[in-house]
Formats: sequence, structure tokens, C-alpha cells
Amino acid sequence: MNEFSIISKFFKNLTIANKQVTLGIGDDCAAIKIPPNYELVTSIDTLVSGVHFPPNCCAYNLATRSLACATSDLAAMGAEPIGFTLALTLPCINSDWLQDFSCGLKFSAEQFNLQLIGGDLTSGSLSLTFSVFGMTPLAKSIKRNGAQVGDLLCVGDKLGAAAGVLPFILNNAKNPLEHYYWQPKPQLELGKYLQGKAHAMLDISDGLLADCTHLITASKVGAQINLAKIPVHPKLLNYYSLDKAQNLALTGGDDYVLLFCLPAQYLNDVQRKFNNVVNIGAITNSNKLTLIDANGNNIKLPQIKGYQHF
Amino acid sequence: MNEFSIISKFFKNLTIANKQVTLGIGDDCAAIKIPPNYELVTSIDTLVSGVHFPPNCCAYNLATRSLACATSDLAAMGAEPIGFTLALTLPCINSDWLQDFSCGLKFSAEQFNLQLIGGDLTSGSLSLTFSVFGMTPLAKSIKRNGAQVGDLLCVGDKLGAAAGVLPFILNNAKNPLEHYYWQPKPQLELGKYLQGKAHAMLDISDGLLADCTHLITASKVGAQINLAKIPVHPKLLNYYSLDKAQNLALTGGDDYVLLFCLPAQYLNDVQRKFNNVVNIGAITNSNKLTLIDANGNNIKLPQIKGYQHF
Repeated sequence: MNEFSIISKFFKNLTIANKQVTLGIGDDCAAIKIPPNYELVTSIDTLVSGVHFPPNCCAYNLATRSLACATSDLAAMGAEPIGFTLALTLPCINSDWLQDFSCGLKFSAEQFNLQLIGGDLTSGSLSLTFSVFGMTPLAKSIKRNGAQVGDLLCVGDKLGAAAGVLPFILNNAKNPLEHYYWQPKPQLELGKYLQGKAHAMLDISDGLLADCTHLITASKVGAQINLAKIPVHPKLLNYYSLDKAQNLALTGGDDYVLLFCLPAQYLNDVQRKFNNVVNIGAITNSNKLTLIDANGNNIKLPQIKGYQHF
Repeated sequence: MNEFSIISKFFKNLTIANKQVTLGIGDDCAAIKIPPNYELVTSIDTLVSGVHFPPNCCAYNLATRSLACATSDLAAMGAEPIGFTLALTLPCINSDWLQDFSCGLKFSAEQFNLQLIGGDLTSGSLSLTFSVFGMTPLAKSIKRNGAQVGDLLCVGDKLGAAAGVLPFILNNAKNPLEHYYWQPKPQLELGKYLQGKAHAMLDISDGLLADCTHLITASKVGAQINLAKIPVHPKLLNYYSLDKAQNLALTGGDDYVLLFCLPAQYLNDVQRKFNNVVNIGAITNSNKLTLIDANGNNIKLPQIKGYQHF
């Protein structure tokens, strides 16, 4: 089976059509029409076997997780999804693997309304690179650098489940939380709703503290987080102590929950529409990140891990 | 050195600014503004060490070649270049390598007016994935499927040099033709000029016969190529017999020269502006590709190789 027959057999039936796509798979380029007063947003993400996912993980889960991770960057800008391209590098052709992968891709592409518009298939050690495409009204995308002193710091959902379940996954042990790792839910609707409201936003992929540091560095501000307010995923307490669960929520990555800076006036409206949004602290003028307990006392920050590639 | 400091040190000084880019490196997504009545075109390409380039090739050459190959897909649509993202997977951090790579990237990015708008840096075996972005007037991009019976089949420049020099490169032997392999020149100006004139177009990456087959398959037509008219690169004759040089022009890849289908009325104008354009045959209603000699007699097609990944 050559490159062209593989694409035709396994990828041409991803039939999600997004109305902005004017030319899909099969030519030198794909084409996307952006309405007047909108702009295109795009991001690229690579996942390497043994670095970003266990080498023997199931192809369906790999597809759903990797497209969700990539799509979360669209959510983090407040963008409307359009499509994606996939550069897939495979050590060999395994029809069962490709069939499962294609099913997973179809599941997530439909969930996010993303059309597969192009790709590349090469031989080599297993890795996947996704480029995702979305659109936002001109100058309305929510960047990392807009946080203002006094903004409320909020997260879009509970934290820690993906990092908490990872040790089970690495040990090939089934666990009811594993969908938090394999099928994360990019907060696309919340992201779009926050347009014109949130001053700054990103998605939590490296962990709350690491990503909060990225945000305050870009915005040249500080932040104070109240540990007691952090929405630790309650099911983590079935497996971990409260301390350890809090640590997972603070430093574990892979949740793909939004972290954003909101003027206080909008909090009630946002929470009425998105029940899981929690105000965990505030933006300060201190130029650093501090963590406090319920009594307002400073707590030593746990070591911020984030994934170090080198 | 971590991911962020590497990006900051080696990639933030690629200072080419393209006026369509409204948000560059450093956020969850980059943003591109597309003028009214234009559409965005995009393509993704992966190059894997040992598959698409020799494992120990110099980083400067790797950068210039890979960005040129990716950009050639924009030329093949008749698009105006805007920007690119790069997902770079490296086995380790070598500052000298990164410095050379960054210089090569800057050289090609300036040559093509492409702004680096985002990327991803991961650890793993060496591979590069480029997404390139350009724009064309709405519905004016030149696709593969528009060839019409009677169109002249034309190529944009001489053929065979890249494939001819490859054996020297693989043997680490210096050769004056090596820039044809490492610094191919995507025919961006020719591509744009052909908008509204050429009925179908692609760039020759797999070899003339293989890519012509892609074009006639997409267009559901046939083609006849006159061997005597093929612009075999004359310097190939310093190293190869005429037969072998013709074979390289027919089946060797990597030239990144445009192949297009032109109504006869435009040929003089196109050749006046682009001296290297050559009419090598015509589109036929036969649904197959035939090769003839100067006397019009059929010649057996050489085996079409194209690169088979699997």
C-alpha cells in the first residue's frame, strides 16, 4: 500500500465539512475562506512516541488525544474551529492501527467541527504533527499578554485528573479517569464566550503554575493564587491524599482547561453560563506568582515541573 | 537550555515581517489577516532524517532546502507567501547546529518573504514539519484538476539537476550543482503570473512523469510529452550520458519546478516574461501519459519511481 492509497483508504472518509474550507485534501495546498472582519488563527503541535504518549498506546486514543491537544490552542484564543492538517510519520503500515487511528480522528474532528484539509505521510519513527486552523473576529483573539492588575484569575474546569491518571496509563492499568487523559475537552465554547471579556487567556497544558507563569511573564504582571480555591478534581481523592491531589492540580499538565484573566464585573455572567468556572486568585503588580492558603498566608510554591524536553 | 530559551535565542531573530501577520510567535496561536476577496492557502510537509535528507547533512542546507520544498507548494497554487510554522524534533541540543539552522532558515524566509509565526520544539529523532501559509485571490488558486484537452503542457525551468547531484551529496563529494538540491528555487513569481491563465498546475517534487501522472489523474485527461523538448539541465552532461540525463529529468525528483497546463494563446506572453518556460507536450483525451520522440514515435516510458515510503 503506498502513500496515496493509504490516504485514500483511511483518511478521505473523514467527511466533516466546514463551510470555510474551499479546497480540501488532494492538491498542493488546501484553501480556507475567512469572512470579512475575521482573521485566521493557527497553531502547530508535534507529539512524539515515548515523549508525549506511551509507545504502545492504542491508536484510537492517540488520535483523540492529539487532535484535542492541538484544538485546545484554538480554544485558548477564543477561536471558532475550521480545519486541520496532519503530518503523520509511521515506522510501518499496519491496517488495523490505521483504521483505529482514523476512527479516533473522525470522532474528535466531528466533536470539534474540524475538517481534515491536508496532510503528509512519511516513514520514520512514530510522530504526529497537527496544524489547526480557526478564526476570530479581527483583533478579538484573546492573547497571553493582556492581563491587568486587579483582574480575577479563573480556571474553566477542575484540574489534575489527567496527570493523576497518567501513572495508571503508564502501568497499563485500567482506570475510570483515563478519558481525562485520552479525550480531553478543549473549552471551545467558553473560549469564544470570553471574547471581549477576558483580558488574557491560555490553556493549561504544562500545569497550572507553569502556565500561569507563562501568562504573567507575557503580561508583565504578577498573580496570587489561593490554594483553597483551586478546583482539584474530586475523584483524585479516591487515589491520592489531598496534598498530593492539590499538587497534581498545581503542577500536573495535560488538563487542557482554560486559564484566564477576567474583570470582576463579568464573573457572575460567566459562571451562570459555565458552571465549572472558578475564580482562583487575582492578577497583582508584584511581577511574581504567589500561592496563599485560606488564611491568606504565603505557601512555598511546589517545584514547577512543566515538561523539559532537553 | 530549555525549549523556551532555545526558541528565544535561535528563532526570535528571524525578523522578516509579513504585513498579513497580525500575531506572530509566542502565543497559543498565530493570527493572519486575509484581505477581502482573497483566501488563505496552506500546506504541511515533513522531512525525516535518513528518508528526506542525509542524516549528517549541514544544518544550514537542511533549513534552506526544507523551507524551499514547503514553499514550492505555495508557488504551485499561484499564491503570495505570508508565513510559516515549524515543528522541529531534535535528538539533542547542539548550539552550533541550531545557529547554522537558524541562519539557513533566515536566508530562505527572507528570500520568500515568509514570516516565522509559530512552532513547536520537541525531543526525538531528527525531523522537521513545516506548515506554510499564503494567499490567492478568491477562487483563483491553480489546482491540479483543471487541465483541458488541447492545453499545452509546460515546465517552468530545466529539469534533473537536483536528482543528478544527489549521488554526489550522498557520497559527501563536493559538486558545483549541489545548490540545485540544497537551495531549490520555488517558482513563486511564475506561479502568480499564471493565475487566470494556466488551467492546472503542480510543482515537480516526485519527478516529471510521476507528477504529470498526478495531474492528469486529478484532471481525468491524458498527456503526451515530447522527449526532445524536455529541458534537460545541460550541466548534467558533464557527469552523465544524454540518455541518463534525460532519465533524470523524467524520473528524478526534487527540482521544484512548476508543471502547468496552458491554453496556447498565452505561451508567447509567458515565455517573454519567463525565459526558461518550455512547452514539452500537450493534454490529450487518452487518459494516459505517453512519451514520443522527435519524429512523433511512441517511446516506452521509463519506470516511474517517485519515492515509495512504504
